[in-house]
Amino acid sequence: MSKIRVGIVGYGNIGRGVEKAVKAAPDMELRGIFTRRDPKSLKTDDISVPVYTLDDAEKMTAEIDVMILCGSSSADLQEHGPRFAAHFNIVDSYDTHAKIPGYLASVNAAAKKKTAIISSGWDPGLFSMMRVISSAVLPGGEAYTFWGRGVSQGHSNAIRQIDGVKNAVQYTVPSDKAVAEVRSGSRPQLGTRDKHLRECYVVAQPGADKAAIEKNIKTMPDYFADYNTTVAFIEEDEFFAKHTEMPHGGNVLHSGNTGDNRHLIEFSLKLDSNPEFTGSIMVAYARAAHRMAGEGMFGAKTVLDVPLAYLSAAPREALIKEML
Amino acid sequence: MSKIRVGIVGYGNIGRGVEKAVKAAPDMELRGIFTRRDPKSLKTDDISVPVYTLDDAEKMTAEIDVMILCGSSSADLQEHGPRFAAHFNIVDSYDTHAKIPGYLASVNAAAKKKTAIISSGWDPGLFSMMRVISSAVLPGGEAYTFWGRGVSQGHSNAIRQIDGVKNAVQYTVPSDKAVAEVRSGSRPQLGTRDKHLRECYVVAQPGADKAAIEKNIKTMPDYFADYNTTVAFIEEDEFFAKHTEMPHGGNVLHSGNTGDNRHLIEFSLKLDSNPEFTGSIMVAYARAAHRMAGEGMFGAKTVLDVPLAYLSAAPREALIKEML
Repeated sequence: MSKIRVGIVGYGNIGRGVEKAVKAAPDMELRGIFTRRDPKSLKTDDISVPVYTLDDAEKMTAEIDVMILCGSSSADLQEHGPRFAAHFNIVDSYDTHAKIPGYLASVNAAAKKKTAIISSGWDPGLFSMMRVISSAVLPGGEAYTFWGRGVSQGHSNAIRQIDGVKNAVQYTVPSDKAVAEVRSGSRPQLGTRDKHLRECYVVAQPGADKAAIEKNIKTMPDYFADYNTTVAFIEEDEFFAKHTEMPHGGNVLHSGNTGDNRHLIEFSLKLDSNPEFTGSIMVAYARAAHRMAGEGMFGAKTVLDVPLAYLSAAPREALIKEML
Repeated sequence: MSKIRVGIVGYGNIGRGVEKAVKAAPDMELRGIFTRRDPKSLKTDDISVPVYTLDDAEKMTAEIDVMILCGSSSADLQEHGPRFAAHFNIVDSYDTHAKIPGYLASVNAAAKKKTAIISSGWDPGLFSMMRVISSAVLPGGEAYTFWGRGVSQGHSNAIRQIDGVKNAVQYTVPSDKAVAEVRSGSRPQLGTRDKHLRECYVVAQPGADKAAIEKNIKTMPDYFADYNTTVAFIEEDEFFAKHTEMPHGGNVLHSGNTGDNRHLIEFSLKLDSNPEFTGSIMVAYARAAHRMAGEGMFGAKTVLDVPLAYLSAAPREALIKEML
């Protein structure tokens, strides 16, 4: 059987994660990486993979079965989604929750003869699937999502904008107490401050006013003001030694009942590398997109629309025999 | 919108669980319970639900959208599955893992114009879904399934067959040590004895030889000989006070990696009532079977073939907006 030919659009952290995952997939081959940078400047993990400019992509419709879009939700995907879905089966991890319905509609309009699976990371993505399964099985229950312990790029970037900050990283940390309460089945009402803490590690510029930086962080609206936030100033050596990884994870819990009987459904992830795990999910959905396109299931899809057997490289019969 | 009309075939513990779950579903109504017993003898949870004999079922094809088969895998489903799938959309929780492919084939041959979702409990069922998702996302990882702490009916029955035993219950208990090792990411090689313990509570007949009973249990092939088993003799009062519930649960863990980075995916259930939770899953899949039949997706299906959006009473658009 011929391999699924994959292209990667955008070569940041997620693009690198997808590259690794395609290499680990027995039924796929990486046919090219597409970048808006000078292709010659790109240092790919595997130097044998051809690198093209974005504008070369549309010439290669016959050579690529699925394009995996790895640009950012805020800067790239609103344009890339519809543009590539017009010519390729695509997968992305669009994660601006509030804008998903509009994005889905614009991709759907473009994907007339292609299959486009959007928002296929872990949240949105696997966590969404767990929320849907749990609430369908135990309607009337209470659902809880916790994120972390993990690095939030958005919050780290926000700190780096503050005067006097040289470098910074922010960890989102779920409250152990809140998670334990939910696991107990008590269905607590939890506010924003109850659920997550924010841990910040900051490298200050020489001579910077650390007290002012700390105040700026802790009072920043939307990002920190509604949370219990800790700020630790560290030296640059320590920053590079301890805080350049991108771990993440989290839990989806659903506490429900049947009559007087209580039930708890929990799904949790503990990830050394957020972008590599996200890339691995996208590659499984790329396989699904290819199969769905082969069956004429065109248009914009989400993880809620894809039968799970389509994610696996193994045939359905083998999954039923060995995993059901 | 008209409600989905559900029938229940078989009124044991699972049938009662399904009855409760149908009542909790906003989009369903229970149209009848079908039993091989004398219908007048059946004490249903809701006395307004009509009770019929099994042989009345085939006359009611126009009145029932989905039949939920609640007979036992060992005694009933091999016959009920193909028989009812010829006339109704069906859902069951067939759980004899080794015989699923053959059962699927026989149901599929019957379900020419009907949708039949088999093996839709939690294992097989939700646990199977997690195994497929995890191994597709992190190929090359190691998967582990733990069951319990929970009552195993099969093991409890086996003890009750022993001379001198008046009553008995057996709890399957996952080894905390084994679960902790898996969670650590070390990917241990675990034998049968390492993964689960078996806790037995036995009410002996007056004058019975307790030492002989204990030996009989601990050396019983297949059921206990390969496990670390504890046997406690208790009085009948204590048995009825503490050991008549049917709690269960378990964990599916998948430990995998991308390059040097390690990731852990875990799904866990903690259930006060195994049959009521199983019934709740079957009802969600009954909804899916009805929808799939409406779209002409006939034949025998498994939980691996059903898009998750079909499980929910909410429309796809609402799920995408609120849960994705």
